[in-house]
Amino acid sequence: MPILNIALIEGRSNEQKEALIKEVTDACVRALDVKPETVRILLQDIATQDFGVAGESVRAKRERQA
Amino acid sequence: MPILNIALIEGRSNEQKEALIKEVTDACVRALDVKPETVRILLQDIATQDFGVAGESVRAKRERQA
Amino acid sequence: MPILNIALIEGRSNEQKEALIKEVTDACVRALDVKPETVRILLQDIATQDFGVAGESVRAKRERQA
Amino acid sequence: MPILNIALIEGRSNEQKEALIKEVTDACVRALDVKPETVRILLQDIATQDFGVAGESVRAKRERQA
Amino acid sequence: MPILNIALIEGRSNEQKEALIKEVTDACVRALDVKPETVRILLQDIATQDFGVAGESVRAKRERQA
Amino acid sequence: MPILNIALIEGRSNEQKEALIKEVTDACVRALDVKPETVRILLQDIATQDFGVAGESVRAKRERQA
Repeated sequence: MPILNIALIEGRSNEQKEALIKEVTDACVRALDVKPETVRILLQDIATQDFGVAGESVRAKRERQA
Repeated sequence: MPILNIALIEGRSNEQKEALIKEVTDACVRALDVKPETVRILLQDIATQDFGVAGESVRAKRERQA
Repeated sequence: MPILNIALIEGRSNEQKEALIKEVTDACVRALDVKPETVRILLQDIATQDFGVAGESVRAKRERQA
Repeated sequence: MPILNIALIEGRSNEQKEALIKEVTDACVRALDVKPETVRILLQDIATQDFGVAGESVRAKRERQA
Repeated sequence: MPILNIALIEGRSNEQKEALIKEVTDACVRALDVKPETVRILLQDIATQDFGVAGESVRAKRERQA
Repeated sequence: MPILNIALIEGRSNEQKEALIKEVTDACVRALDVKPETVRILLQDIATQDFGVAGESVRAKRERQA
């Protein structure tokens, strides 16, 4: 532990994902005083039609505001 | 809050997904007396080989029953 | 399917939880054209110190604003 | 119940997934004394760049060690 | 990997939980040909009022059928 | 987005949880170039009998090694 699930709007580059894994692992090490190898992170890409806020998907909102 | 994760058998149209986001958000607003913009919904498409009931995937069951 | 995980700030009554389960199930039935008995809902109570927005827990924010 | 979410490094064959669903369902039946049809399993394929251990993705680690 | 989240109706003994962890780990080892130490399992106790099927919580259903 | 679920072995103080929320939010802001208020974090305390590695719960392992 800790085990982290991170849901992201899809489209991030592998470099951004690598930076996120590194930064978040270091944040856990500092805050929880754990070893880096105990920190496991799962990233989950979410398509814009699969993420809804206030009753509307991000996709529909972007199309409406385009 | 609330934050909802909804796992669905893959294959739903964007229209069905939009309707689901709208209907479920409204349901949360009515039942919990919260504002729509506080309701976040993540949809997760599950392939038929990735969903198992009674020890068998939906895919294998459909092939068996075809 | 569908299977829903709903994270809620803790403190809701059993009546509110019952209403939420009923309303959200009906919403899924309407939007996805599925039978009610296929809809499974797991509610997850989240303590105010365990939910963070903008780098601060809800608990800390409420104390700050009290 | 029980409902199981299983995160896997992507690349497993449908046969392996079918065996996993069968074996894990049987394990739940033995350990919890429940009927197989009450056991639901969702498999989640995780790409190597989306799984991090010790601050680095599995992808980056494999490239480094290649 | 694999990482498993298992949602259970609350009330299982520690012995049942220990048996579940052992059995499910062995099932993963057989089906996926992985080492036991790579298998991580998180159990999540769900109260009967927090699990809904067909629009009703398990708690309400049990009270109705009592 | 992003939305993070962080499973922790139970026992952390509110101060450690507050530090974790702050540090992880800042890590997401740096790595993903997002605003802090878009980052939501849910912490999940896991009892030692509910977390298994290599077929054994953390609780059983600690008792064995005591």
